[in-house]
Amino acid sequence: MIVVLKSGVEQEKQAQLIDWLSEQGLQVHISQGEYQTVLGLVGDTTRVDMDLIGSLGIVDSVKRVTEPFKCCNRKFHPEDTVVQVGNVRIGGGHFCMMAGPCSVESEEQIVAVAKAVKASGADMLRGGAFKPRTSPYDFAGLKAEGLELLKIARQETGLPIVTEIMSIVDLHLFEDVDVLQVGARNMQNFDLLRELGKTRKPILLKRGLANTLKELLMSAEYIMASGNEQVILCERGIRTFDDYTRNTLDLAAVPMLHELTHLPVIVDPSHATGINRLVSPMALAAAACGADGLIIEVHNDPIHALCDGAQSLRPEQFDALARKVRTVREVALA
Amino acid sequence: MIVVLKSGVEQEKQAQLIDWLSEQGLQVHISQGEYQTVLGLVGDTTRVDMDLIGSLGIVDSVKRVTEPFKCCNRKFHPEDTVVQVGNVRIGGGHFCMMAGPCSVESEEQIVAVAKAVKASGADMLRGGAFKPRTSPYDFAGLKAEGLELLKIARQETGLPIVTEIMSIVDLHLFEDVDVLQVGARNMQNFDLLRELGKTRKPILLKRGLANTLKELLMSAEYIMASGNEQVILCERGIRTFDDYTRNTLDLAAVPMLHELTHLPVIVDPSHATGINRLVSPMALAAAACGADGLIIEVHNDPIHALCDGAQSLRPEQFDALARKVRTVREVALA
Amino acid sequence: MIVVLKSGVEQEKQAQLIDWLSEQGLQVHISQGEYQTVLGLVGDTTRVDMDLIGSLGIVDSVKRVTEPFKCCNRKFHPEDTVVQVGNVRIGGGHFCMMAGPCSVESEEQIVAVAKAVKASGADMLRGGAFKPRTSPYDFAGLKAEGLELLKIARQETGLPIVTEIMSIVDLHLFEDVDVLQVGARNMQNFDLLRELGKTRKPILLKRGLANTLKELLMSAEYIMASGNEQVILCERGIRTFDDYTRNTLDLAAVPMLHELTHLPVIVDPSHATGINRLVSPMALAAAACGADGLIIEVHNDPIHALCDGAQSLRPEQFDALARKVRTVREVALA
Amino acid sequence: MIVVLKSGVEQEKQAQLIDWLSEQGLQVHISQGEYQTVLGLVGDTTRVDMDLIGSLGIVDSVKRVTEPFKCCNRKFHPEDTVVQVGNVRIGGGHFCMMAGPCSVESEEQIVAVAKAVKASGADMLRGGAFKPRTSPYDFAGLKAEGLELLKIARQETGLPIVTEIMSIVDLHLFEDVDVLQVGARNMQNFDLLRELGKTRKPILLKRGLANTLKELLMSAEYIMASGNEQVILCERGIRTFDDYTRNTLDLAAVPMLHELTHLPVIVDPSHATGINRLVSPMALAAAACGADGLIIEVHNDPIHALCDGAQSLRPEQFDALARKVRTVREVALA
Repeated sequence: MIVVLKSGVEQEKQAQLIDWLSEQGLQVHISQGEYQTVLGLVGDTTRVDMDLIGSLGIVDSVKRVTEPFKCCNRKFHPEDTVVQVGNVRIGGGHFCMMAGPCSVESEEQIVAVAKAVKASGADMLRGGAFKPRTSPYDFAGLKAEGLELLKIARQETGLPIVTEIMSIVDLHLFEDVDVLQVGARNMQNFDLLRELGKTRKPILLKRGLANTLKELLMSAEYIMASGNEQVILCERGIRTFDDYTRNTLDLAAVPMLHELTHLPVIVDPSHATGINRLVSPMALAAAACGADGLIIEVHNDPIHALCDGAQSLRPEQFDALARKVRTVREVALA
Repeated sequence: MIVVLKSGVEQEKQAQLIDWLSEQGLQVHISQGEYQTVLGLVGDTTRVDMDLIGSLGIVDSVKRVTEPFKCCNRKFHPEDTVVQVGNVRIGGGHFCMMAGPCSVESEEQIVAVAKAVKASGADMLRGGAFKPRTSPYDFAGLKAEGLELLKIARQETGLPIVTEIMSIVDLHLFEDVDVLQVGARNMQNFDLLRELGKTRKPILLKRGLANTLKELLMSAEYIMASGNEQVILCERGIRTFDDYTRNTLDLAAVPMLHELTHLPVIVDPSHATGINRLVSPMALAAAACGADGLIIEVHNDPIHALCDGAQSLRPEQFDALARKVRTVREVALA
Repeated sequence: MIVVLKSGVEQEKQAQLIDWLSEQGLQVHISQGEYQTVLGLVGDTTRVDMDLIGSLGIVDSVKRVTEPFKCCNRKFHPEDTVVQVGNVRIGGGHFCMMAGPCSVESEEQIVAVAKAVKASGADMLRGGAFKPRTSPYDFAGLKAEGLELLKIARQETGLPIVTEIMSIVDLHLFEDVDVLQVGARNMQNFDLLRELGKTRKPILLKRGLANTLKELLMSAEYIMASGNEQVILCERGIRTFDDYTRNTLDLAAVPMLHELTHLPVIVDPSHATGINRLVSPMALAAAACGADGLIIEVHNDPIHALCDGAQSLRPEQFDALARKVRTVREVALA
Repeated sequence: MIVVLKSGVEQEKQAQLIDWLSEQGLQVHISQGEYQTVLGLVGDTTRVDMDLIGSLGIVDSVKRVTEPFKCCNRKFHPEDTVVQVGNVRIGGGHFCMMAGPCSVESEEQIVAVAKAVKASGADMLRGGAFKPRTSPYDFAGLKAEGLELLKIARQETGLPIVTEIMSIVDLHLFEDVDVLQVGARNMQNFDLLRELGKTRKPILLKRGLANTLKELLMSAEYIMASGNEQVILCERGIRTFDDYTRNTLDLAAVPMLHELTHLPVIVDPSHATGINRLVSPMALAAAACGADGLIIEVHNDPIHALCDGAQSLRPEQFDALARKVRTVREVALA
C-alpha cells in the first residue's frame, strides 16, 4: 500500500502517522521526494482501512498495490475455472446457453419452454420461482411450487436448472437445484453470500446495478473464501443516465473480468436491455467479445407472441439466435 | 394507467391488445387522436405489469397515473408522520440529531462518545455492531457484543440507540434496540423489509446507492404494507461519475420526498461525502433545505484526533456544528 | 403531445391552462378519466415548451407523441442513408474501417501508419490535427500543418481522410478534408453544427459523454436542418460511475439508433475503453451487433510498441483484428 | 508523478521505460518494494501524458502528485479572489444574488423583472439573449436585440448584467456586457475559453453536465492562462441516473471547490432542479454550505403566475427567498 502525503506536512504529524502505522504491524518505507513524501507500507495490509487513511488531513491519497481479492484473482490462479453442472461446462473454452421464462407459471408452460429451448440447443433451463419485486403488491413468484415445476421440466428434458435464491431462510428448498442465482439486488447481501459459500453448489452471481468490477469480485470472494469455488459471474447492465434501455449493458466488463479473474463470465442481454428487439444483437456482441455463456429469457405465451414485444424472445427467435451465436464466437475467438 | 400506441398500428393488433387488457379485469377507454391512439385503463392497475405492456411492439409508451405506493403516499395521508422513540420525536417539525461512532469498539469508547454527543445536544446514539463490509477479510463488527455495549451507553446517557440490522436471522438480537437501521445495500432486500414490517420498531431506511426516490418509497411500502408505519427515510448519497467525494449527496431529494410522502426524511452527510471537512457544511445545507434530522459520525480516538481526518467528526467539531444547525433550520424554515 | 393533469385539479385552473394552450394555436382534446384528466394537443407542437408545461403545478406529466427530430427520423425516411466518400461507402450494408494515429506527428509517421492500415484493409485514414485537450498546457496538435500532412498521406495511399474540427473559425482550413469530425465535447456546440450543415461535407458526429440518444439525434438534426444530409453517428462511450475503463461503451445504442434513424452508426472502441487490450474484443462486439463501421487508433511509435499499452493498436494487432471483423459481421447479420 | 509498476515486471522492460522517461527530461527515483516497484518522477511533469503511461502493459497505475492546474490553485494563491463588477463583489465573504428571466423577451418584460428583483435585493440581472437549444427548431433567443434590451434594463435599475455567450464570432457584441457566461455545454469549448481569456471581462463558468471538479478547474485554467483572472465558477447540477429533477445538484462541490481553488463559487438551483418548488430550499442549502452567490430565474409572465410552476420563481417568491438567504448564510458561516 502506498500513502502519498500532502506537500508541506509538518514533520511532527508525519512522525505520528508513521508511528501509528507501525503499531498496526506494518513496515513503513519513506521516499522523500522533491515535492512530496511517499510512504510504502509492507506487511498484511488487507486489514488496513484504506478509506480512513485516505481521508486523513495530511494524506493526499492512498493506493492499494495488491488487490484485496485473492481466491478469484487470476494472478494467483492463471488457468480458467471450469464450472461443471452434470455434463454441462462453463468457462475455459466451454460456452453455455441458459434459457427459459422470466417466471415459472405452470407445469405446462415451463415444460413447453424447456423442450423448445432444448431443441434449439440450450444447455440449461432458467426460470424464476422466487421473484424480487420492487413493489410489495406485485406477484412474487410461485416459490416452492415453482421449484417443483422446474424439477419436472428438468426430468422431461435433462436440462440442469438455474433459479434465484433471495434469502438464507429458503436455502433448504434449493437442495436439488443445480445452479443458485444471486440477483443484482443481493450482490452485496453478505450474509447470503457467506452461506452460499458453505454449500457446494455452483453460484451464478449477478453484478449489481451500481457496482464496480472490484465490488463484484469482492462478492465472489465472499463465496469462495467460505470454501465454494464454483462461481459464475454475470454482467447484466448497470444504471446510468441513459434511459432508452432499462440498463446500460457494459460489455467491456467481459474481457476486463477475464483479465482480472479466472472465473467464467456470462451475459444477460434480456434484463440489461429490457427490449426484445435488442436481445439478439447484444447476445451476438457478448459472444463476439468472449463471454463464456448467455442467459436469455424465452417465453411462449400469447400476449408476447401477439405483440412481438417485452424483453423475452419467442422460441423461434431464440432458435435463430442460437444458430448464429456459436459461430460468431468461434470466428471472433479464432 | 395510460397506454400510448404507436402511430399506424394495425386495427387487428390493437383489438387483440384491448381484449387482453379487458381479460385482466380492466376497463379500457380509447381516445383516437389525429396522430395516435391513447388507451386509458381504469380498475386495479397495481397488479398490471407496466414493463411488459411498455415493451410490446405496438406500444409507444405507458404511464402510471396513480403512484404504485399507497401507505407512504402524502396524497392519502397529508399530515406529517411523527416517529416517536421514548421522548425523542422525528418529523412534523421535530428535528433529531443522531450521532456516534462508525463502529462500536469498546465500552469505554462508546460510553465516552455517547456522553460527549449528549452534552452537545444529540438526541440519539448511533453505532455499528453488525457492519456490512465489501471484503470478507475486513472487520465486520462486534455483533451481539456490540449491541450489549450500545445498551450500556444508553443506560449511562438515556440516549435511545439506532444500529444496523443486516439479516432476518439476527432479528431476535435487536429486541431491545430502539431504532433498526436498514443499510443502503439492503434497501431492496425485500425479505428483510417484510420481516421488519412485522415488528413494531421504528425503521431507519437508507436510500440505496443507485436507487430512485420511487424505489426508496416502494421499499418503505414493503415495511408499511406489513403493518409497521414507523419508517424514517435517509438520503446518504448516490453513486455518480463524480469521484472527489465517496458518493454524491442528493439534497434535492429532501424537499422532493417531503412532497411525495408524509414520512420523516433525514440526511447522513458522513457516509455521503466520506470526508470530514465536508460533513459540517453538508449538515448545515441539509438543515437549510428542510431535513427532519441528521445522522453523523463522531469519534474520539487518537488517530482521528491526530490528523483531523476521516469522515468522522471529533466531539468538539460536532459540538460546534450542533450549535448552529438548529438555528440555520429555524431561519430557513421561518 | 399528451398532458396528464394531477388528480383533483380545480376546474378554474384547468380552464385557464386550456385557454392558454389554445392561444398557442393548438387544438385541445380533453379525456376526463375516473382518476385523471388527459389533454391531447394537436397541431404544431414542435414549438411547444414541454419542460415548461411539465413543470406547471397542476400538471402531472407531459409526453411528446411525435419525436421532435424529423430529418434523421427513420419513420419519415425508411431506407438507410449511405454516405459516400470517393469510392468508400458507409451504411446500408456497407461497412467502413477508419484507422490511424491519435495525433498527426510527422510526415514520416502519418504516411507509415496510413500505408500499414491500408495494407490491412482500412477504408479511411483518421488522425488528429486539432486536438481538444482538457489542459491548456497540453499539446493541442499540429493544426494546419497536421492537415497538410494528412493530405500527403492521402496522396500516398488513396485513403480519404477524417479529422476533427473544433471551431467555426477554422472551417476554411478543412475545404480539402474528406470527412469532418465533431468531437464528443462539441456535440452540442450548436453554432458549429449549424455551420457544418451549410457545407456539403460528410460529418462524423460523436456522441457526447453524457448525452442521450435523442440528444445525439437532435444534434444530427441541426446539421441536416441546415441542408447537409451526410451525417455519420458515432458511439464512443458514456460517462458512468464505472472506473475501470475510461468510459462505458454503450453498444446497445447501435441497434437502437438503427431503429430510430436511417443514418449510419459507427463505433470508436479506442476512446471508449482507453485500454489497448479491450479494443479488439469491443470492435468485434460492435461488428456483431450491427455497427456500420469502426474508427480505431493505430500507431507505430516505439514507446507503444515497447510496452504493449495505451489505447492504440500496433499495426500487426490492427491487421489481426481487420481480418476477423468483417467475417464476424457477416455471420452475425446473416 | 508516481508510477506504480505491476509485480513481476521483467527487468529489461522496466529499464526501457526508465530510459524513455529520462529522455523526456525527468529524473526517475526508483523505490523497490517487497511486492512492487514505484517510480517517482521529478521535473516538469505537466507535459507528461499520464494516460499514455497509465495504459502501458507493465504499469499498474500512475498518479499525479501535483495538480495540473496552477493559476486557479489555492495552494499557490491562498487568499480568496474577489471578482468586482461595478460596485458588486463576489467572493472573499461577499455574497451576490443574480436574478432574472430565462430569456429576454421584450423591453417591458426585462425592465419589469429587473426592477422587481432589484427591489428584493438582487445585485445583478441575468437574462438569456443567445440561448443554446437542444432542438434546431426551438426559439434560440433575441440575440443582439436581447443584449440591447438587457442594457436598457441596466440603465433603468443600475444592475450589472450577466448573459451567455455561445460562440467566438459573437464576441464583439458583448463588449458592453458586464459578466459573460459560459454555459454547461460549452465548458470544454476550449477555443471559446481561450478567447475569453484574452478579454478583461469577468467570466461566469458553469460546470458541464458530466464534468468532474478537476475538469471544471482545468477549464478555468484555460481562461486564466490566457491572462484573465476574473473567473466565477458555477455548480448547476450533474447528470445522473436520477430522474425526478432535471439534474442532480451536487452541493458538496461548493466546499470542495473552496478547498481546491481561490475562485468564487456560485450555485444555480433553477437549472439544477428544473422545478420551481425546489428552487428556494436548494438556494438556502447552497447558502448554508458556503456558496458565494446564487443565480436564480425569476419571471413575471401570466402562465407561470397562473400555475405556480416551471423552474422560475415569481417575483414575490424571490422576495421571500432573498430575505432569508443572507441570514441563513450568516448563521451557517458564523
